Amino acid sequence: MSVKNLTRRDMIWASGILLTAVRQQTVSGQQPSHPEKDLIYWSQEPPNAEPELDKLIQSWITPTKHFYVRSHAKQNPVIGADEFRLQVEGLVDRPLSLSLSDLMKFPQRTLTATLTCAGNRRAEFNAEGQVGGVQWQAGAIGNATWTGAALADVLQQAGVQSGAQHVWFEGLDSIEHQGSNIGFGASIPIEKAMGGKDDVGALLVHAMNGAPLTSDHGYPLRSLVPGYIGARSVKWLGKVVVSDRTSSNHYLATAYKLVQETQDIDWAEAGPIYRYLVNAAVGSHPAGAELAVGEVQLSGYVLPSGFSNARVKQVWVSSDDGAHWTEAELTGENQAFCWQLWKVSVPVTRDTRSIIVRAQDSRGAFMPERVPWNAKGYLQNSWFRLPVKVS
Amino acid sequence: MSVKNLTRRDMIWASGILLTAVRQQTVSGQQPSHPEKDLIYWSQEPPNAEPELDKLIQSWITPTKHFYVRSHAKQNPVIGADEFRLQVEGLVDRPLSLSLSDLMKFPQRTLTATLTCAGNRRAEFNAEGQVGGVQWQAGAIGNATWTGAALADVLQQAGVQSGAQHVWFEGLDSIEHQGSNIGFGASIPIEKAMGGKDDVGALLVHAMNGAPLTSDHGYPLRSLVPGYIGARSVKWLGKVVVSDRTSSNHYLATAYKLVQETQDIDWAEAGPIYRYLVNAAVGSHPAGAELAVGEVQLSGYVLPSGFSNARVKQVWVSSDDGAHWTEAELTGENQAFCWQLWKVSVPVTRDTRSIIVRAQDSRGAFMPERVPWNAKGYLQNSWFRLPVKVS
Repeated sequence: MSVKNLTRRDMIWASGILLTAVRQQTVSGQQPSHPEKDLIYWSQEPPNAEPELDKLIQSWITPTKHFYVRSHAKQNPVIGADEFRLQVEGLVDRPLSLSLSDLMKFPQRTLTATLTCAGNRRAEFNAEGQVGGVQWQAGAIGNATWTGAALADVLQQAGVQSGAQHVWFEGLDSIEHQGSNIGFGASIPIEKAMGGKDDVGALLVHAMNGAPLTSDHGYPLRSLVPGYIGARSVKWLGKVVVSDRTSSNHYLATAYKLVQETQDIDWAEAGPIYRYLVNAAVGSHPAGAELAVGEVQLSGYVLPSGFSNARVKQVWVSSDDGAHWTEAELTGENQAFCWQLWKVSVPVTRDTRSIIVRAQDSRGAFMPERVPWNAKGYLQNSWFRLPVKVS
Repeated sequence: MSVKNLTRRDMIWASGILLTAVRQQTVSGQQPSHPEKDLIYWSQEPPNAEPELDKLIQSWITPTKHFYVRSHAKQNPVIGADEFRLQVEGLVDRPLSLSLSDLMKFPQRTLTATLTCAGNRRAEFNAEGQVGGVQWQAGAIGNATWTGAALADVLQQAGVQSGAQHVWFEGLDSIEHQGSNIGFGASIPIEKAMGGKDDVGALLVHAMNGAPLTSDHGYPLRSLVPGYIGARSVKWLGKVVVSDRTSSNHYLATAYKLVQETQDIDWAEAGPIYRYLVNAAVGSHPAGAELAVGEVQLSGYVLPSGFSNARVKQVWVSSDDGAHWTEAELTGENQAFCWQLWKVSVPVTRDTRSIIVRAQDSRGAFMPERVPWNAKGYLQNSWFRLPVKVS
């Protein structure tokens, strides 16, 4: 499949059962423009950006313009829809080469799911020791509606052979890594790929929030793995490999693990991160916000841990360093693999120095008061502490 | 190699550089007797036992009679020293079949290291939801001196081939598992197996505390992997396999992982546990101890996390539910991979309901106030809480 600049691209996408054909003009020789993006960019090459939190929490569904972008390649690959093929190979009876039209012939599924970067809230680790990578605040999270074929349906057509243990995703992007170029990659256990009761498993997504994927979100095709950290939902997806082992791709085998040092032995000892953890943040007020003595209305988001049977159970907020806690009200829909929003009113006194948020979910998962530092700054889900000033 | 009842066994063992030949009579047709054992047995078949804590903390080196026993086979295998051979195979240039005498010809290393079961303090998880397995209190830990060849020296003689990633240990015991019999097994990353700066890696141990291994501790040979949970130190060791992947043995691939449920997908998502975590407990007083108002002298053990550069930094003890903390004094030697003992005097008032202990090590690892429940009850290292009564 060729990857080239396009003067025109053809996209076919579906929302729900209805199939719709869309033709979209883009400026010759350029990436699709995104005048609608409204994000804070930590880097342009690769594009890494998160929304301001007050904008992020305005709606249960995150508009694409406020959806965080996490990429590893300096440039998004530019992929022609007509020439695009998804290769399905490995431990299958019938290797497949599927065009977008072929993928549209599978039953189309639309679901809402939260994606969050494993590095969300990474910057908070720096108090204890510098962590590398994009210095995410609490905005590397978003909740969108995704449409595409179930990976399980595609794998069923290919015929999964016995011995299959993991399904690899390989991206068409080109990332400079240790002197050569690699695509972003991941794998997920075969049980997740095939789905189960109450869990479709994973989707091969071509549409986000009812529109074709933007370039930043993996046009024309990405995987979407509800419940897993964002890194397992591979953008610009070009290949699916059924294997007897986990992917050897750097981003599965060596990155996205909890380690304290980064020698070979540390990577060898640590397993890949899959599920995200319960988490929450204040969105209504920035760090250092000035509050008046009295009552303050706060709001934010809360995410249950990444299991199909996990729901938010409680969000508590304290304005007196944890001596008293007020339970917040949940808003937004209560669905599997989705965040909710919360709001609360708490007292502010002259002694208030921070707002603290903690949450637990229906599986008993909770945000700990403090989490161990790790060298890559992943899975920061300690109590969210917002420093404030009282006037 | 045959496994049979013996009327006599020949053991050759070494302590330090000096090689000593020992001949030991045992009763015909019986397991070696252990009149010296002084342990609480949670089960006899398999033998699973831990010491009373007040006995455990009497010395920095744990006498073998007070060293916890964790086995999976109903019966210890009875292995003739003369017939014993350790097989070394897999990705090696020269597969080896080594007698105990052959193993004695390698440089003998003697080191002190703490072993602890991943399930130590498991019983504390039950407050939140029942966990299966041996209901360990805080005594599944001990500190002993171990003697044997470095695994790295043996592997060097065999010649490790490129592509080697993990080293498997296979035990000669016979465990009923899902309708068949398997040996206990494990694997460790090749980097650990080969050792490094400040870390010999792993030993092939024939002597514990200056005497041949007892049957309960793996006679005639076991692996000893300092810093790793006890399950990676395989008793009755019969085979070492150099491989490009982790062991497929049940006890590496499926057990000894942190999971909340125990379906295939849960095991697939979780990596094996290797290093143990920082931990501590009170040993001087049992749960429910009656204390008099005034001062109480407490003592216990503290273990830094399982890294060669980790040392105990601080142990704090509170008698007022965490409002005030007293730093304990450390005793015993301060060595890599070893516990220390601690003692402290804290005030007891009419309001004292529990003694709480927490610790942190030189790597910044700390005992959290609370740890997430997991289905197998591993790595319980939350603040140690001893309920007491005040008279």
